[in-house]
Order: sequence, then C-alpha cells, then structure tokens
Amino acid sequence: MDNFTFQNPTKIIFGRGAETKVGAECAACGGPVLLHYGGGSVKKTGLYDAVAGSLRDAGVAFEELGGVKPNPRLSLVREGIALCRDKDVKLILAVGGGSVIDSSKAIAAGVPYQGDVWDFFVEKAVPQAALPVGTVLTIPAAGSEASTGCVISNEDGDYKRAFNSELVYPRFSALNPEAAFTLPDHQVAAGAADILAHLMERYFTNTRRVELMDRVIESVMKTVMGNLPAVLAKRDDYDSWAEIMWAGTIAHNNLLNTGREGDWGSHSIEHELSAVYDVTHGAGLAVVFPAWMKYVYKHDIDRFAQFAVRVFGVDHSFFSPEKTALEGVARLIAYFKSVGLPTTLAELGVVDDRFEEMAAKCTEYGPVGRFVPLDKDGVAAVFRLAV
Amino acid sequence: MDNFTFQNPTKIIFGRGAETKVGAECAACGGPVLLHYGGGSVKKTGLYDAVAGSLRDAGVAFEELGGVKPNPRLSLVREGIALCRDKDVKLILAVGGGSVIDSSKAIAAGVPYQGDVWDFFVEKAVPQAALPVGTVLTIPAAGSEASTGCVISNEDGDYKRAFNSELVYPRFSALNPEAAFTLPDHQVAAGAADILAHLMERYFTNTRRVELMDRVIESVMKTVMGNLPAVLAKRDDYDSWAEIMWAGTIAHNNLLNTGREGDWGSHSIEHELSAVYDVTHGAGLAVVFPAWMKYVYKHDIDRFAQFAVRVFGVDHSFFSPEKTALEGVARLIAYFKSVGLPTTLAELGVVDDRFEEMAAKCTEYGPVGRFVPLDKDGVAAVFRLAV
Repeated sequence: MDNFTFQNPTKIIFGRGAETKVGAECAACGGPVLLHYGGGSVKKTGLYDAVAGSLRDAGVAFEELGGVKPNPRLSLVREGIALCRDKDVKLILAVGGGSVIDSSKAIAAGVPYQGDVWDFFVEKAVPQAALPVGTVLTIPAAGSEASTGCVISNEDGDYKRAFNSELVYPRFSALNPEAAFTLPDHQVAAGAADILAHLMERYFTNTRRVELMDRVIESVMKTVMGNLPAVLAKRDDYDSWAEIMWAGTIAHNNLLNTGREGDWGSHSIEHELSAVYDVTHGAGLAVVFPAWMKYVYKHDIDRFAQFAVRVFGVDHSFFSPEKTALEGVARLIAYFKSVGLPTTLAELGVVDDRFEEMAAKCTEYGPVGRFVPLDKDGVAAVFRLAV
Repeated sequence: MDNFTFQNPTKIIFGRGAETKVGAECAACGGPVLLHYGGGSVKKTGLYDAVAGSLRDAGVAFEELGGVKPNPRLSLVREGIALCRDKDVKLILAVGGGSVIDSSKAIAAGVPYQGDVWDFFVEKAVPQAALPVGTVLTIPAAGSEASTGCVISNEDGDYKRAFNSELVYPRFSALNPEAAFTLPDHQVAAGAADILAHLMERYFTNTRRVELMDRVIESVMKTVMGNLPAVLAKRDDYDSWAEIMWAGTIAHNNLLNTGREGDWGSHSIEHELSAVYDVTHGAGLAVVFPAWMKYVYKHDIDRFAQFAVRVFGVDHSFFSPEKTALEGVARLIAYFKSVGLPTTLAELGVVDDRFEEMAAKCTEYGPVGRFVPLDKDGVAAVFRLAV
C-alpha cells in the first residue's frame, strides 16, 4: 500500500426529500446562490420547484443559469463566471448530473481566477481558490457530487479536458434516488457504465498489497451490476436506485483509490470520443474499457483473473489463469450487452477514419494510463480493438 | 436503505512517517497543544520523540499528560480538563490507541463545558462545543481515530459509558502501520476482535435492502481476518498491518452504517465486563459476540446465513439455512481461538456470580441492542451462553 492523505469534506444528504434540505445548507454562504442546471427536465419533474422552494424557505436569494449540455461546454462556463461576478454570487448550486456539477465546479474555480478558466484544463494554472459548490444529484454516474474532478469540453478544437482540485469537493450533495425515476434507459445504463469504469480505473493498479480496497471495489461493482437490471425493468424501484446512487458516489469520492495508483487511460481515450463525436461518456466507456482490457491484460494476468473470479464468479482455471482473465473480459462485455450498452465503436456510429488524429490528441501531454502507459500507437491500437 | 446524513471531516495521513507530519497539522490551532498519552511505551518506541520533534519543528508549544490506562479513567479526564483550562490549550493531540484517543475526546468536550464531563456519559447533557483533537494511532482497534465515539470508565461505581458527538471527530489522524510493530500478541488479537466487532455490530441490522454496505462490511471483515495471522507470525509485516490499520479506521468511521441501523448490544454487554473486571475490550468482545449470536440468530436466519457464506465461505445448506447460520457462528469462534483470543468468560477469569448485577446495570436505561433489543433477562442469558 502506498502512503496517502485522505479527507473528503462533502456532506452527503441521502434519501427521500433530500432536495428540500439544500436551502438550509446554502443559508450559511452569506449571499446569493447560482442555481445551475441543464435542459428542461428538472423543471418537468418538479425538482427545480422543490429546490427553488427550499431556497426561498431558507431566505436564500438566487440567480439562475440553465442550458448545461452533456459534455458541458466551456462557453457556458465563461457565461456563468461573468454572471457570478456581476451578481456577487457566493455559492453555486448544481441541480443535475455530472455535466451540470462539472460546469458548476468550473464556474466556481473560474470566478476568483484572473486568467481564463481553460488554463486549469491545459495545466497552465492550478486553482488557488473556488466558490463553494453544492449539488442536487439527478443521475448516479459521474460521481462528481463528492469528487475533486471537473471535466469540460472546449468547442474550439474539440477538446475535452479535466482538472482535479480539493477546492471543488462539493460542500454538500443531496442524493434522492427518486430523482432517477424519470431517466431514459440509455442514460440509466450509461450512468452505471460510468460508475463501473470509475471502479475499474482504480482496480487495475501496479501497487502491491492493496487487498482492502480491491475487495471493496469488487463489492461496489457487484452491487451496481446486480441492481442495474432491476431499475431498468422498473424505473421507480427506490431500493435498487438507492444502492446504485450511493455506490456511484463512493466509487469516485477518492476513498477507493487510497493507497494505490489507478490507471485512467480508458477515461482519457473515451474523452477523445466524446470530444469529437459528442458520445455519451458512459456509453463510450462501455466500448473503450473492454478494448483496453484486451490490449493490456497480459501485463498482470493474476489481477485480471482475480477480477474475473471475484466480480463475475468465473470458475478459476488454475492451470491457465489467462483463460480466467479473458473470461472476465468476455463476461464484462456480455454484461454491458445485457443492459443495452454498446460495446463497439460501430454501435456509437464511430468509423475508423480519425483514430490516428484522436490518438495523437489523447497523448499530446505524453502517454496516458498508469497501469500500462499507452503512447499514440497504444491508444490507436485500443481504438482498433473496439471497432 | 434508510435516509441518512454522512460527513466525516477527519483528515487521514497514512503511511511511513505519518507521525512526523502532525506538527504542521497542529500549527493552525493557534496556541499550545496537550500531548496526551498512556504508559511509557510511546517513549520506549521513540514515537513520543518523533511527535514532540514534529511539534517543535513546527513551532508548536505543548503541555503533556501521560498515564492513560486501558479502559480510560474519568479521574484523569478531569485532570486533563483542569490542565487545559489552566494552560489555555487549543488542541488535544492523542498519541496512543483508543483509550488515549477517547480520554482526549472527553477532555476536549469537557473543557468548554460548565458542568461535570460525566454528564455527557449519563445523558444528562450533550456537548455543544469541543476543542479540536488530533491523533497519532498506535494500535488498530477502537477506530476512535475517525469516529464520533468516546468511551470512559468511571471508577466510582464501576461504570463504563459512552457518548457520540460529531464535535469529537478528530481533525486529523496520523496512521503509521509501523507503530504496531511493538505490540504484544494479546493486544494485536484483541485489537482485531474490536475491529471485527465494529463491523458485526453494523452488519446485523433490521434495515432491508442494504446490499452495498453488507458487501463492503464483509470485505473489510475478510481483509482483517486474512491479514491478522500474518502480523501475529511476523510483527513487522508492514503490508499486512497497513491492511488491518486502514480497515480498523473504515470499520468505525460511520461510512459502513450509512442507511442502516446496527445493533450495538454486544458492546453494551462487554462494557459491563470491562467496568467490573477491567477486561481488555477486544478480548471481552470475542467472548460476548459469539454468545450474543447464539442467543439472537433465529431472529434473522437469512442474514446469519449470508454472513456465514460470504465471510467464511461456508457451503450453504439450501434446505437448512439454520445449519449454515450456526456454522458461521462456529467458524467465528474457531477463528477467534486460532488467533489466541478467549471465547469463554472462564478464560477471562469471569465467574457467574455477578451476571444479574451486570445485566441490571447494562439495561438501566432500557433494553440494549437494536437488531434484537435485550432486556435484563436477555443480557443475563447472553452471559450464561458465554460461560
């Protein structure tokens, strides 16, 4: 196990009615709040009204900015920064999924920064301060509700880039599983794939003796995979959603990477797909991750065999661990198919004419991934295995 | 899953050299620190010098108070409170195990309180403020390094009582597995039993649909049980200690009880043994828990069967789940014996002449335990099953 420091300050308010408690949480910020959201869905479902009502009940004034799209855009972030400065906003309240939360985090870090917020995403600057962020989560997926991560797409050049900072850990996050009842099938499955990818990025590590977190990650994976079919079949299955929603937060709140180095190559590779083709992040991960596995599994067959046995219950081939390892990859692909996720680039409508370009962009700061660092050729090879 | 709120603010500094980082953590408190510890062991091992050196390097002045005993005494807590008031101490730095940390928490809550600190332990008052506490952990066991709990023994009447308050979550805890290298066998095994008991208290619940935390608890139990024999055989096995130490913190930091109600009856019952016989808490739990299981397992045979299968790998008797359940209890007892823990009151030197008295005191505020509430007769029955 590696040395580590861990402190996650996010207050989780979980369960039915959680969204009605955010007004009280915002009241301490001492000024107006920016209510940030996406398309009209939060207005249709009544969530917007519940949150706005909670703010009013607590005597909290608020501005608002809607229009966040999946793969949230830099242009709206800049608009939000200008609005917050103009109105002296003291807290950003994200009502939505990972895109809305990440857009909020970018605004939060951008407001006190003198330069352009994109600097944080291209390693030109590191956030030194940020407005507090609160969230009301609508989809278990990105884990941004209790993470340090922030991913934004820059329309100028098809870039999708991330920064990490403890300054953007949300102060509080309201998680009501009922919010997920109105999600379409595609988003449900893609969200779960995103959660599973966060777990696998952490799982595939070169750090030795990390049994506790190995086992915990396996537990969270099994829980997500076991409960996903239930919510696909019955969208208002509160108890199954509760398992998935809390799992999605824990998958990405930095507890499960304590003492170990993850990989994160598949995320970098998928970001190129999202940037160029505006692919749903989770769907892209369902395609990229199995291809990545096929490309790297020989690096640590024992780890892939453990994954196969413990997560999928594969009967271990003691005299051919490689067989076990490959069976695990096959089971993951079969699982993704069973829940309606794409597992090939063709299903995403991606053809092979820009693999080299995307691979070059993906590796412009050097190889991606720590379990197995991939250079441009490696990334292109993963794309080809995903055709 | 029940609704819940979760926020654990403790900063975990984990790994080799962690103790040298506490000076910097204390520097922000703005005044002298009370260095609180137990017998001479921290001086013998050099840990005291490392911590004192870290404080000096950071320019932090400190008072000191040693002498904390296992089952920490109220009298020393009162002494610490007086000392802190006299010297205007701003932070309590516990260097030791659960007893030292709990003594520190009691002092921390007692300093700003006008009345007597024992009030918190007899539900006469609730802490409204507390000095910050930091810890340098020497034994994975109590989990107090990242918990809300505080247990103190009152010599006046053989009482051992607890309070819980988010105000006493430590601000930071330094966890260096090397600190455990000098522990005697008995403390190693008793510490692990304490960790396992924290996990089982949470595991046995009446709350339905708590799969995620069920699985995570099972993972932490398996990790502790799998690594304990290694450190008993080779006391300086850093990697195995790292697993146990981080597991011990996670077992009790309130994450694993999110969305569920635990039992905690066995802890209450054991506290009577510790109060009257000064039994080591973990050793007492190794005796009480299996007896409690025998008394209550019929309340939820499915849950006990799940425990047996998933934690101990028991081959499930599909046509007789009770057999599976009882095999799980038998395996737990066998495990405790295999690591040198007592599993009967006789081994603790406890005879049956005070069962009724202890059962009465244990239930003086009403039945104990939430999975199966036990009145005086129930507690006495558990004692009799532990003979």
